[in-house]
Parts: sequence; C-alpha cells; structure tokens
Amino acid sequence: MEVLKFPDRNTWGSLLKRPVMETAALYSTVEKVMEKVRSEGDAAVREYTRLFDKADIKELRITEKEYLEAERSVKPELKEAIALAVKNIETFHSSQQTSIRKITTAPGVTCWQKSVAIDKVGLYIPGGTAPLFSTVLMLAVPALIAGCREIIMCSPPADNGKIHPVILYAARLAGVTDVFKIGGAQAIGAMAYGTETVPGVYKIFGPGNQYVMAAKQLAAREAVAIDMPAGPSEVAVMADESAIPSFVASDLLSQAEHGIDSQVLLLTTSERLIDEVNDELEEQLNALPRKSIAGKALKHSKAVLLHTVDEMLDMVNEYAPEHLIISVNGAEKVAEQVINAGSVFIGNYTPESAGDYASGTNHTLPTHGFAKAYNGVNLDSFVRKITFQQLTKEGLGNIGSAIEIMAEAEGLRAHSNAVALRMKKN
Amino acid sequence: MEVLKFPDRNTWGSLLKRPVMETAALYSTVEKVMEKVRSEGDAAVREYTRLFDKADIKELRITEKEYLEAERSVKPELKEAIALAVKNIETFHSSQQTSIRKITTAPGVTCWQKSVAIDKVGLYIPGGTAPLFSTVLMLAVPALIAGCREIIMCSPPADNGKIHPVILYAARLAGVTDVFKIGGAQAIGAMAYGTETVPGVYKIFGPGNQYVMAAKQLAAREAVAIDMPAGPSEVAVMADESAIPSFVASDLLSQAEHGIDSQVLLLTTSERLIDEVNDELEEQLNALPRKSIAGKALKHSKAVLLHTVDEMLDMVNEYAPEHLIISVNGAEKVAEQVINAGSVFIGNYTPESAGDYASGTNHTLPTHGFAKAYNGVNLDSFVRKITFQQLTKEGLGNIGSAIEIMAEAEGLRAHSNAVALRMKKN
Repeated sequence: MEVLKFPDRNTWGSLLKRPVMETAALYSTVEKVMEKVRSEGDAAVREYTRLFDKADIKELRITEKEYLEAERSVKPELKEAIALAVKNIETFHSSQQTSIRKITTAPGVTCWQKSVAIDKVGLYIPGGTAPLFSTVLMLAVPALIAGCREIIMCSPPADNGKIHPVILYAARLAGVTDVFKIGGAQAIGAMAYGTETVPGVYKIFGPGNQYVMAAKQLAAREAVAIDMPAGPSEVAVMADESAIPSFVASDLLSQAEHGIDSQVLLLTTSERLIDEVNDELEEQLNALPRKSIAGKALKHSKAVLLHTVDEMLDMVNEYAPEHLIISVNGAEKVAEQVINAGSVFIGNYTPESAGDYASGTNHTLPTHGFAKAYNGVNLDSFVRKITFQQLTKEGLGNIGSAIEIMAEAEGLRAHSNAVALRMKKN
Repeated sequence: MEVLKFPDRNTWGSLLKRPVMETAALYSTVEKVMEKVRSEGDAAVREYTRLFDKADIKELRITEKEYLEAERSVKPELKEAIALAVKNIETFHSSQQTSIRKITTAPGVTCWQKSVAIDKVGLYIPGGTAPLFSTVLMLAVPALIAGCREIIMCSPPADNGKIHPVILYAARLAGVTDVFKIGGAQAIGAMAYGTETVPGVYKIFGPGNQYVMAAKQLAAREAVAIDMPAGPSEVAVMADESAIPSFVASDLLSQAEHGIDSQVLLLTTSERLIDEVNDELEEQLNALPRKSIAGKALKHSKAVLLHTVDEMLDMVNEYAPEHLIISVNGAEKVAEQVINAGSVFIGNYTPESAGDYASGTNHTLPTHGFAKAYNGVNLDSFVRKITFQQLTKEGLGNIGSAIEIMAEAEGLRAHSNAVALRMKKN
C-alpha cells in the first residue's frame, strides 16, 4: 500500500480520485450487439453466445431437468448456509415494507402513496471463475418480497453450455421465474427488448463487466430502468489504535481479492497500525488462492494517516465508499456522522464479508462515488410508490381558488377551468 | 379525438404506442456543449447563453437585490395561493419521513437503514412563455424537508437577462440556496461538473426540452444521478356513465394545453360519453388562450370504447400513464387495481390540476411508460438509505460458518479469513 501522512486537504481530491471508467469507448460496439438482439431476437442471442461464450445453446431457457440436476449437486452444508443467508436477507428486507398512510393535507383532500411491485424485473449474474450465487440471493429475495410477478435471470454459460449448479439452485430457491443461458450485452438487450424466448422486463439489476455496464446504460436511455451505474468494488476502513491489525488486513484483502481494479483505502490516526497492518497483509496475502489478484489490487491501494476521527470522517464523506468499516473507539457514534457511503460496518466484529453474505443487508451497492447520490439495492428498488389523491367537493373548494390563481399565473386556463367547472356544478 | 370502438387486444400495443423520443440524435450536439462547459466553465456558459438565449449575462448568480425586486412584484393573492400549496406539499412530503428501525436478523446481528439527504442537489426550471413556479415548489420543498444542504437552481434568462419574478419568489420561499441564470444543456453541464460560479451537485432534477433531457441522460452516465427520464406529459381518463362530460373534457384539455405533443387518452365504457365529451371539448377549447396548442394535441389524442371496467384497467396498466383520472362508479376500489401509473386522481372532484398545484402530491412524474419502472419525485428522491450493521462477537459466531462456507464456495478465501480470524481471537 502507498502510505500518505497527513496529506494537505487540497490534495484530497486527487488522492481520492478513482480511475476513469472506460465504458464510453465501448458504446458503439455494445450498441451494435443490442440493436441486433432487438431486431433479430433469439437468433442474434445464439450467434453472440457462440462468438463470445464459445457455447452453442439450443435451449436458452433452463429446463426442469437442469434445476433438478443442480439441486442434487449442491452439498447439504452449502444448502444450509444459503438457507441461513436467505432467512436474514428476508428478515431485513421484509422490515422495509411500508403500509399505506392516508394523509389529509387540507379538509376533504386526502393523499397517499402505495408501494406497488415492478411487474417484470431482470437480474444479471456474471459468469467467470467464481459462481456469484450470493448476488442471486441479494436480488431475487427482495424482488419476491416486493411482489414482482416475473423475475427472470440471465447468466452466461460456460463453454460446456452450462450454468454453475449453485447459481441455478439459488435462483430456484429464491423464487426466480426463469433462468436463461445468456451473458454480456446480448443478455441485457434480450431483457430490455424481449425476444421470442426471453420476456422483456421493466428494470434490470446486477453486476457485470464493462460491456454489461455499457449495455445497461444504453438500455436505461430509452427502454428500461437499471439499479445503478457501477464501477470496481471498494472498501474504506477507518481505524484507530483500538483496531486489530489482523482484522483490518483481512478486510482489506477481502476487497482486494475481488479484482485487480478493486479500490482499497485505509484511513487511520495510528501510525503504528499502518506498519502492523502491512505486516499482516504480507502474511495473509501469501496464503490466499487469489494471491495474484489481491496483490495487484493492493499495489494501487492507499493507507492515509490523519490527525483526528473528524478528519477521517471528512475524508470518508468526500470519498463516498461502497463499503465502510469503522474500527475506532465509539464506532457507533462515529457512524452517525457518515453521510456518504453504501453500507457501513460498525466495530471490530463486523467484517465486510458479513454484509456480503449473511447479515441480511444487501451487497449490491453504489461504487465509484455514486454513493453520494444513490443507495444500494433495497426493497424500494423493486417497487414504485404510486401517489393517489381523492378530493371531496368541499375539499376542492378548500384549495380550488389557490389552484385557479396559480394556474392563471402559469398561463394555463384549462387547468383553472377544471376547477371552476366543478365548483359551479350543483 | 380519434374514436376507437372495442379494439382487439392484439392491436393495443400499437394503439398505445407513444411517439419515439428523438434525444439520441441530439447527443453529439449536447455532448459538445457539455464538454465545453466542463473544460471552460463560466466562459462557455456565458457564450452559450448569448448564443441560445440571446442574453448577455455578467452576473450568473441571482443577487439579493433581484430577489427583493421579485418579492415586491408578486401579487398578494398569488403569494397566498403559493403559501397554501407549499403547506400541502410540506404536509404530504413530511409524512414520508422514515425513522430508523434496528432489526435483529440473528442474535447479535443488528441491521438498519438510515435516510440521509443528498448533500447537493440541482433543480432545473425551464423558461418559455409560462413561468413554471409550481415546479420550483415541487422540487425545492421536498429537498428542504429531506435536509439537502445545498439546493441550487438553474433557469434560462429571457432576452432581457431576467428570470420571471414568480420563479425567483418561489425559489427563495421554498429554500433554494442559489439561483443561476443559465438554461439548456449548458445549465445541466454546469450543475454536473461545476464551474467557477456554479457548484457541482450530485443529483439533478426537473423538466426541460429535448436538449435538457439529453444532457441529463449524458450526465447520468458518469457524473451525477437524475430524477428520471422524461417525455411529453400525458393523461389517461377512465370514465363510465357516472362521469360528468364537462369535467372530463376540462381534464383532457388541461393536459392538451401543455404542448402539442401532449398525450391524451380517454377510456370509457359509455359510447354516449364520447359524444358528449367531444361536444364539450369543442366548446371549452374555443375559450382557451392556448387554443391552438390544445387543439393540435387533441388531433392525435384517442377515445377508446371498451366493454368493462376490468378491460379499462388492463389497458391503463399496459399504457402506464403519467396521470390517471378515475371517474367511474366505485372509483376508489378500481384505483386499488392500478399497478402502472404515476399519480392517480380518484372521483369526479379530483381534477389533475389539483395534483399539479396544491393537493400536496408531487407533479414531477414518470411519462412515456416509464411509470412501469419509476415513480414520481417524492421525499426518497432526495435521500439515500444507507445501510448499517453491527455484530457482536457472538453475533458473528451465529452466522460465521454460513459466511465461511458461502465465501469458500465462491472461491473467496480472504472473505472467509475475515471471519475465521475474528472467531479465533481470544
């Protein structure tokens, strides 16, 4: 890690700068893929799957037989672990349900909001070396609680034409309606526009590589909503002398092992801690299967020595990390002052991996500073709050003249007529 | 209005089709404007203001003197009307505040969400013939309730270099921090990237022409969040024989007078009503100052005769209108079955103009079918729900083995180490 001691505030901006995301350059390629999927449907999807995934897929939709095979191949202890995660995710996301509260804003004027599930949603789960079944749970469990009627999922097949069994098991368990063996921009196109086999959806969720991200951005321009823009995953750890170096190192490595572009930031008021964490990093890194990835990510990560907890908070709020771990004295009080972060982990016994898998919070979170404007996926991500209003004639009488005066001042006579006609009626 | 009687279901798709939005074609122009604002700041903003708004603006920021002048020029009765609207908008949006509920998902594992205001937001208010001060209220009032620290606003100057006084009055009243005389894509660029004078913000709200919309979409790709994509305004009215033709006509005209591209749709089970509404339309239209605009919008609007209320509901849910007026027997029950709409107006005495100005609901709503995936602006639009979790050592013990098993199954050893190290600690 690069160590920076008491950097001047006017250097914070460049110190915290994230690498520029290169999706813009991909737009023309991705646009071509999506256009072809839009116009040619399944045929285009199959062609791109042959080209990009080296797999020849006849039946894009996962069959009952494949679910059963998957179910049989997942070990009982993993099934138990998944069940526990599902239970906690369910508990936390169910607690986010809201009831209708009718509000009388003026006598005879009643207004309310009602959460209504997005009817059709699409989840994207990347392929690659590790099967990200935890992300299946993080997206499908809240979608089901919200009441989405159709929850489809796309994930790229391996070159043997299969999707990892744990992904299929998790999808079925969590209530996904249908899984399709499609990856990349062609999957996003299929879900955005629909094909003969893949139903079009209204909102698309889930992580992915740069092509997937660019495709989601393009789809969001006209066809569908997306969960959020995304960049490489990141963690910031705030630590003082009460932090335990081996724990801190393990959290930094949890982030670093995700990918070589992972962003890892340690803020501390303890110079001693930096040295001790560095020693731990070296030791723990050597034992990791993904040592080479984590090592590369650590190379561009930073440890910053600051004077006070307040200064650490200022830097955190300027950086707006996806994950924030607070290992300082009085961590809970400190957490109250965080205004920009995705998810916050309080105290020495709350590692990021708890939230990644099983505490119950969602792990789909805003990266790249987007935490300044976005939150992570939660139950609200799967609903819309439709507003309703109901006025009695008396109610309209109570606010009618205000409406007429304002409508006239905006030059909109028909708007005031709609009130005047009603008030004149016997 | 074009009248369609009992159209076959497989024609509904094309019948309900909205005109394609042409923003994609504008992207290259708009991108150039935004890039120049990004690199040259205020100088570029002033240059584009001369070019597009024909105004030479030295001081982009509204001065105290200008606010005072504006305040003096607004008539007392309009001030009173605005005050009533502000009160109702405040009442409804304040009722959307949430408190923190700590959830124990497993013994020793506590999770919660906290609403935290987006620190800096930017509001865009279009210029043009009518001063849209009601939109100022709809955006600034909830931003202030949410607790946004910096609420800036941009609006294009007229060629005399001024912004309409009611806009300035409303902005000041509703708590806007600073107003800038900037319009179009250059305003969006200034708020997204910041200039010497205009502070950059994290989320941009508000309506605008195609250039503004394209600029918001481009900004959303990398820099900031936006409220929602937008197209022409629209209303659908569901009416049966209990509806009052003059009321229905006044509501259709309220929408039609917004612009020649306004989308107006009448669904009814009563053939007689169509004729009566048509007669009323003719009569009421002739008395409107914006007769020519409303008349053009009506030309491409549709009245659809259907068999049942359920069929009307199906069509509404397929169309997903921005505004939905329900004037049928048992309107409140019918409203419960609406799943795709922005805002719903129940019964004969609830015209759309009530929600446009003063019922308390927000009038910034999803158009163009986006109501299938988005809701209108509400208090949540100005906050993020940050998640927090705090585990005791026992808590981590309760979910630790599940985390370790899942992390190992995803091939992420450092994630399981973060748990194992903590559990081993004495």
